[in-house]
Amino acid sequence: MSFCVITAIRLLLYLSVFCLFLAPSSAYAHARPWWSPNLDATAAHGPLPLDVRTDLHFPLHARGTNNDGSLPIYKDPNAPIENRVNDLLPRMTLEEKIAQLIQGDLDGWMNLTDPNDDTLTYNATGLVTELTSKAGAIWGGYLMPWDKWVYGITIGQRYLIENTTLGIPAIVQSEALHGFTNNGTTWPSPIGLAASFNAPLLHAAAATIGTEAAALGFSQVFAPVLDLSRELRWGRVEENYGEDPFLTGEMGLAYVSGIQEGTRPNTSATAVARVAATCKHFAAYGSPQGGLNIAPVAGGERELRTYYLRPFERACAGVEPTLSLMSAYASYDGVPSVANYHLLTEILREEWGYPYFVTTDAGSVDLLISTHGTCATRECAAKDALENGLQMEMGGGSYTYLTLPDQVAAGTVDMRYVDLAVATVLRTKFALGLFENPYPYEDYLSMLRTPATRELLHQMEQEQIVLLQNNNSTLPLSKNIGSIALIGPQVNRVTLGDYVFHNATLNCLTPLQGFTELLASTYVRINFAQGCELWSNDESQIPAAVAAAEASDAAIVMVGTWSLDQTLLWEPGTNATTGEHVDLSSLALVGAQLSLVQAVQAVGKPTIVIFVSGKPVAEPWIQDNADAVVQQFYYGELGGLAIAEIIFGDANPSGKLPVSFPHSVGTTPAFYNYLKGGRPIDPGYVAPNGTLVFGHQVREYVLDTPVPMWSFGHGLSYTTFNYTNLLVYPSTIGANDDFNVTVTVHNTGTVDGKEVVQASLIYLTDVVSSVVTPNQFLAGFQKVFIPAGGSETVTIQINSTQLALWSLDNTWVVEPGDFAVKVGTSDTTYLNATMTVQ
Amino acid sequence: MSFCVITAIRLLLYLSVFCLFLAPSSAYAHARPWWSPNLDATAAHGPLPLDVRTDLHFPLHARGTNNDGSLPIYKDPNAPIENRVNDLLPRMTLEEKIAQLIQGDLDGWMNLTDPNDDTLTYNATGLVTELTSKAGAIWGGYLMPWDKWVYGITIGQRYLIENTTLGIPAIVQSEALHGFTNNGTTWPSPIGLAASFNAPLLHAAAATIGTEAAALGFSQVFAPVLDLSRELRWGRVEENYGEDPFLTGEMGLAYVSGIQEGTRPNTSATAVARVAATCKHFAAYGSPQGGLNIAPVAGGERELRTYYLRPFERACAGVEPTLSLMSAYASYDGVPSVANYHLLTEILREEWGYPYFVTTDAGSVDLLISTHGTCATRECAAKDALENGLQMEMGGGSYTYLTLPDQVAAGTVDMRYVDLAVATVLRTKFALGLFENPYPYEDYLSMLRTPATRELLHQMEQEQIVLLQNNNSTLPLSKNIGSIALIGPQVNRVTLGDYVFHNATLNCLTPLQGFTELLASTYVRINFAQGCELWSNDESQIPAAVAAAEASDAAIVMVGTWSLDQTLLWEPGTNATTGEHVDLSSLALVGAQLSLVQAVQAVGKPTIVIFVSGKPVAEPWIQDNADAVVQQFYYGELGGLAIAEIIFGDANPSGKLPVSFPHSVGTTPAFYNYLKGGRPIDPGYVAPNGTLVFGHQVREYVLDTPVPMWSFGHGLSYTTFNYTNLLVYPSTIGANDDFNVTVTVHNTGTVDGKEVVQASLIYLTDVVSSVVTPNQFLAGFQKVFIPAGGSETVTIQINSTQLALWSLDNTWVVEPGDFAVKVGTSDTTYLNATMTVQ
Repeated sequence: MSFCVITAIRLLLYLSVFCLFLAPSSAYAHARPWWSPNLDATAAHGPLPLDVRTDLHFPLHARGTNNDGSLPIYKDPNAPIENRVNDLLPRMTLEEKIAQLIQGDLDGWMNLTDPNDDTLTYNATGLVTELTSKAGAIWGGYLMPWDKWVYGITIGQRYLIENTTLGIPAIVQSEALHGFTNNGTTWPSPIGLAASFNAPLLHAAAATIGTEAAALGFSQVFAPVLDLSRELRWGRVEENYGEDPFLTGEMGLAYVSGIQEGTRPNTSATAVARVAATCKHFAAYGSPQGGLNIAPVAGGERELRTYYLRPFERACAGVEPTLSLMSAYASYDGVPSVANYHLLTEILREEWGYPYFVTTDAGSVDLLISTHGTCATRECAAKDALENGLQMEMGGGSYTYLTLPDQVAAGTVDMRYVDLAVATVLRTKFALGLFENPYPYEDYLSMLRTPATRELLHQMEQEQIVLLQNNNSTLPLSKNIGSIALIGPQVNRVTLGDYVFHNATLNCLTPLQGFTELLASTYVRINFAQGCELWSNDESQIPAAVAAAEASDAAIVMVGTWSLDQTLLWEPGTNATTGEHVDLSSLALVGAQLSLVQAVQAVGKPTIVIFVSGKPVAEPWIQDNADAVVQQFYYGELGGLAIAEIIFGDANPSGKLPVSFPHSVGTTPAFYNYLKGGRPIDPGYVAPNGTLVFGHQVREYVLDTPVPMWSFGHGLSYTTFNYTNLLVYPSTIGANDDFNVTVTVHNTGTVDGKEVVQASLIYLTDVVSSVVTPNQFLAGFQKVFIPAGGSETVTIQINSTQLALWSLDNTWVVEPGDFAVKVGTSDTTYLNATMTVQ
Repeated sequence: MSFCVITAIRLLLYLSVFCLFLAPSSAYAHARPWWSPNLDATAAHGPLPLDVRTDLHFPLHARGTNNDGSLPIYKDPNAPIENRVNDLLPRMTLEEKIAQLIQGDLDGWMNLTDPNDDTLTYNATGLVTELTSKAGAIWGGYLMPWDKWVYGITIGQRYLIENTTLGIPAIVQSEALHGFTNNGTTWPSPIGLAASFNAPLLHAAAATIGTEAAALGFSQVFAPVLDLSRELRWGRVEENYGEDPFLTGEMGLAYVSGIQEGTRPNTSATAVARVAATCKHFAAYGSPQGGLNIAPVAGGERELRTYYLRPFERACAGVEPTLSLMSAYASYDGVPSVANYHLLTEILREEWGYPYFVTTDAGSVDLLISTHGTCATRECAAKDALENGLQMEMGGGSYTYLTLPDQVAAGTVDMRYVDLAVATVLRTKFALGLFENPYPYEDYLSMLRTPATRELLHQMEQEQIVLLQNNNSTLPLSKNIGSIALIGPQVNRVTLGDYVFHNATLNCLTPLQGFTELLASTYVRINFAQGCELWSNDESQIPAAVAAAEASDAAIVMVGTWSLDQTLLWEPGTNATTGEHVDLSSLALVGAQLSLVQAVQAVGKPTIVIFVSGKPVAEPWIQDNADAVVQQFYYGELGGLAIAEIIFGDANPSGKLPVSFPHSVGTTPAFYNYLKGGRPIDPGYVAPNGTLVFGHQVREYVLDTPVPMWSFGHGLSYTTFNYTNLLVYPSTIGANDDFNVTVTVHNTGTVDGKEVVQASLIYLTDVVSSVVTPNQFLAGFQKVFIPAGGSETVTIQINSTQLALWSLDNTWVVEPGDFAVKVGTSDTTYLNATMTVQ
């Protein structure tokens, strides 16, 4: 190619790139000023006009500097982020650009095979090789000593900053679904965090998680999960904040704002966060067909908008968006999420104005070939993902994005898609302040596993426990009781959810340890008997458990589900009943557990059943026969103590169910916010004596009920509450107006109670609407402390957008008419009012 | 209103109506020549310009004649139907028009309380009252003696023809889902008819059903049901032709063409059918949330097109469309089907060019108020249904269409919607030839329950039985066997499906009678023991059953589900496990039935389990332990004999499963044509000794498998087949080309076999596609008779439209690339080939 042609093309590219970034400064506006992926009308699915080339308009020797020796704008910490992006991008070679779209891996230069090894060495050749082609991010999710981690990350970042032409740092990534996984503090699983219904507490918790991650040099964590638990067989229910889009959005926002809070030390003034939270999995991943992980999801546009997308818009694409999103593995109505133009571009970019990058989940671009069947080649898969709106490819697959340089050169992929993608990655890096300081904090040790964090954790452990049933005030037990039997396979073990690393249990108390510690200063005897294994039908240990119950004044039986850490979970020969890819066909207790409960209950002592689980356990016999039932979702490091404190009344239960408990898998879905028309009148049942009582109406089951045993929002207290003075104001509003709901809550019992005060769960129903709307939906909640005999007035503001439905014209509309306002749980109403939209 | 104004308006109306029916003669063209409901761009959901009035342009006194005494065109049997419609409609008053949109009822003038009463009298006042406001159709679905029926219908039609100004006859309606319900011949339930995989036989069967209905004066039956059995908990699974859209479409077409075949005697030459078949329920009704009848259905546009709509387009909207359709009760993605503009107008009318009327299901317009919450008033409900494309309102509700005259007068409903609706009803009536002869046939008695019909029935009863499992050739039993035990609650009763009337069982044999009759000329002893009731956990009769097995050389255990007739089904205090509104939360056997099977099997005699059921029974223990398993779907009048003939080899089983049998309700959905990505690798299980073997891969269950016990297409024979010479030609086609699949089938056993020859089930897979497509889909089937040692070559033509996918651009596209062609069942491949679209 002649010099003239090259010069001409360079000029053309310059103009093209210049035009591309002629963007207004507000990246979050809802028009599409800065992001214009519609290169032409059929851009996403048709051939593109090729009018750009891969050459550079900066001389190669001066890309990291300017010809006049001045500092390039992209290196100026005081320059606006968009200016820095626009300055840097044209300096990059095609290969450098593509490298920004691929996740590298710490194991490229560190020996990570032994989690206990603490040798501080690295492989220099591996370092260069790895980061030459994969430099967008560095995966660091390995268990190792903290100092080795700090060392490895520092080596990588220093190489990028000091030894590459442009000096672009990497984002360093790990997991932090419920605690930073590299030996940070482990919190309850997200389903438990949600059960606290305490968003400010979750925000504070997430802030400590973000601190632990940032201190060690991490700048992105793959959390929170905003999928909805509408399909309970799915193994990942424990990773979600429950079944409700509003609760999920609010808890997600609390988590995101905690993780991203503050900026790194010694960085630019334009930085907006220290660690990028990553909302996942975008979108609608939580309802796979049959509950089978990554299986196709069925649904329409209205369901997508009404349920699945709301949490993402709320928590990840608002005025302070997350600095990254992760796409889902599954397809939705036949379109794989990893290459879904409607989701990734039309909604996320054009409607929501999202400015940062979307990453794949591990290996998920390859699924276009192996699973979804929409591509035959890696080239096709990479092109489909990139052009439809997916920016960074994670490892775990064949790195299809490595095909992009050749595809751009061959003209099959338009450079402008690459540039748009790279710009989102650079934007995130500038927003994280990584160009100024990508390194672990010098004083990181002072920020890890602090006493203050442990105190917050203790509160969360208590607040996530849900009192489901408490016949005749069986609970709390008195410390004057002579003895308790602690029975069951969940007593003498630590049951954490998935997304923890090897040995995380070593930081935890077992429930047996917790009860022992709590009762150490009392005369209460503990008679422990395991009764059975979680994973076996062997009933040979049950007699010993019965004996323990007989020898005690009350029996506590701890049963449930279990998960494994992120290594064991994927290892053949292990077992689990929840966790990623661990899906169930039954929600009943596995193995001999129900037999154990039944045998213990038959002894006749007050019998308290505690479910330790990552999802609802469906055992109606226990609801019918236990004196008290307590739900403890997968806990964190202090769960073993917290459950003892709840049982003996040192703490008052204040958790609420974020997910409904069905009678059996055959009666699912159980979610409370079903569309109008979904629920029954007169279900049948099997009477305790075996008599079959046949139901006889539409929308029931012949011998069971779709009404859950315990529905979303349910959760008792040791005290009682009364609610008065419900006020909705204004009671008549315009379609764009917000309104307030106020109610006074009285603690009418004798126990001080930190509670999800019942009154502060606010549900709405759009009474008559042009399309079918949910029979009810949560619109507000607030947790307050009310001392015994006291009262508190709660005011919750409800935004007009919460009233909108997805109309027949495919727009959000707040329709005139009445909204029923309810204060209560999802299945119990304490107070009613009406609000009218004019 | 002054005369001038009236005249002016009449003129306006005349012009308007004239324009409205300026339609080309081809009513089925895919553009929208004759049907133009888009009155303006926002017509369906916005206010309409009011430019028509309710007055007439024909003088009232001459509406049924012309001023010049000539015969009105609409009375001319030789005039084209469209001309007759166009002539008649402008002669009608508003009230007469609305009356055409409402279903009347025979009970308006007949006393029908006692089904055995045969008094031939009528109430003259009731007759006039009923048919003045409700004259579109007459519901006649009551049990009564044939002559009373003929009398009542004749009275009604004579009144309409002879005593009303315009003389418009009514359509007379009843049920005929599997036999004409008014004491016509009862056939197996549709799920069984489908299991025959014999479309020509079903066509012949339907022709007899149509004859029985027509002879008695009926001109519309509410069948076939083309919903898909993708949600097995739903009580109406028995009413469908299974889970597959292609099988459902083909069987539906066979049924429709049989019902509508021929024309009434002494009618017009333009008549196209004697009885209107009614495809229902339009659309996507078969997957209600939770399996609960009429509950909302979730799904997107691609799922709607790929699965739910295909049977309707094939069987009901082709070149010989059904003369009516029925809407569904449910909503789809938030839009009630009864007022779904996209379904009823955009797809049905504009895309498919459907010319006849759509009726509601009973009371379903009222559901807009009571269930879907999209209307607060009857006025709103009627307007929403009518304007979105629903023409006739059935009884069973509050007759919301009675509000239409006032709404038209008040200007809230545009008269043009009324006219469009009435035109569809009139078009159906002309197409039925009712204006010339709406009466029962004079020789009706010779057409009911004929020997020829019974012979066809006998064949169908045999062909619907599916041999699921036959270890060590346990079946057929030899007639030289000394004795058999006939055990189980299905032995000494008749188990018909729903949609039969009171006493239909009186025409049937029980299995006990069938075996007794078949074995009358042998020395085989029958030891009968019921063992248990269908509806009880009582196990007290099991010892007697065990004794019967011990006393016999083989044990046949008949268990399953049961339904009730259309009266009892809705009566409180009765019980059933399948049927309309009878939904299950478990697919296991109810009550003591499994215990009975286990106790009998433990005796050690060859044990044959026969499921008599309306849906899959999920009992993996039986699959694991029975020597043979036979599926007999709800049978017809000769089912009791046919099962005996199959068991003793007088007939060779040739049925195939139209629906997959899951291991448990928790492993559903079980359908074979799931989208790519939906199924597993390494499922877990509970071993027979109780050991829990945990699965360990994605897309399985921890302790079970989503792979069905027996999948769609499965069905054994007493002979064996071999398949050779698979030929696909052309093997390369253009996107609009059809192609043929040919294969040679050899009967390699010693038994003559009428079979769904395995080779003639053809499945396709779109190997790589732009959207996620089914992992496989049935594209052709054909049943042939092959004598022992013989062979037969089968050729099946596959239409290019069968290859189309619903693209990202929302159009049908046949994409270039390979299609895998498979001959076999859905889970067993006998021969493979490839066909390429260029």
